[in-house]
Amino acid sequence: MTDILGKRLTVEQVEESNELAPKFDEHGLIPVVTTEYHSGLLLMQGYMNEEALRKSIELGEAVYFSRSRQVVWHKGATSGLVQKIKEFYIDDDQDCVWLRVEVTGSGASCHVGYKSCFYRTIPFGDDAKKDENFTENGLKLTYTEPEKTFDPKEIYGDAPNPTKL
Amino acid sequence: MTDILGKRLTVEQVEESNELAPKFDEHGLIPVVTTEYHSGLLLMQGYMNEEALRKSIELGEAVYFSRSRQVVWHKGATSGLVQKIKEFYIDDDQDCVWLRVEVTGSGASCHVGYKSCFYRTIPFGDDAKKDENFTENGLKLTYTEPEKTFDPKEIYGDAPNPTKL
Repeated sequence: MTDILGKRLTVEQVEESNELAPKFDEHGLIPVVTTEYHSGLLLMQGYMNEEALRKSIELGEAVYFSRSRQVVWHKGATSGLVQKIKEFYIDDDQDCVWLRVEVTGSGASCHVGYKSCFYRTIPFGDDAKKDENFTENGLKLTYTEPEKTFDPKEIYGDAPNPTKL
Repeated sequence: MTDILGKRLTVEQVEESNELAPKFDEHGLIPVVTTEYHSGLLLMQGYMNEEALRKSIELGEAVYFSRSRQVVWHKGATSGLVQKIKEFYIDDDQDCVWLRVEVTGSGASCHVGYKSCFYRTIPFGDDAKKDENFTENGLKLTYTEPEKTFDPKEIYGDAPNPTKL
């Protein structure tokens, strides 16, 4: 049996063939878009290195590479919120993958405590020109989730926040 | 009126406030996830630089930065397939944005001719261990769109393919 990850031979092969031949960037990473299978909600955008991609394919569960912690990370190992893969897509030039998942437990995916990492919207068009949509430091974001689904301190304890300025 | 893009002051401000304070990576880019508003289909994953983000907010239409062509790129300028923004999200640490769009014309977003850039799936779990799901060069991808929505040669002519090996 050949390796699960093919070699990149030509642009035509990458775009128009049925051979899996993913591209990793100069840091050895490929971006990952993860949406909730039943709703289409975007849960998170992360990265995989080659090891994480291989493990995700093997397990059928999302395994990422954490850039802030520099480790391969089986999502849900700490929180219990495992992402079970229902569909696993790759894009035209094979430098991005899309996971359609169902999440075990409460269904949340965001370390801040919300269901989705994308819990705020940006005003745009005419709305981005109205005084009422400005803070003293940039446009005013609107929260789209009514409340957090869990308390991060209870789940993660004193683990350092992965967000970097 | 202050600038639309705020300054990043603290992790708490970035995650828990209503101030837009996006982060650009070492190449000056922020990743963008673009889904179809009415269906949730992932159309593409791209990048914006600061100029593209400002223009997208101002216009209410998706403007990207093309890494392969190194230009700011108003999506649809050549193809007529403009992405009208319906909702514009930013994530917890403000280093990724999500556009929910409706696309004018045929509704397609992929330069190869498919509706979505994600027109192939990867086998996973037990399926990724079966001989029948292997090519001679990596796992066998399955096409999910029955046919292309347009002929790229008719739309783009002799413009170079943006995909790089």
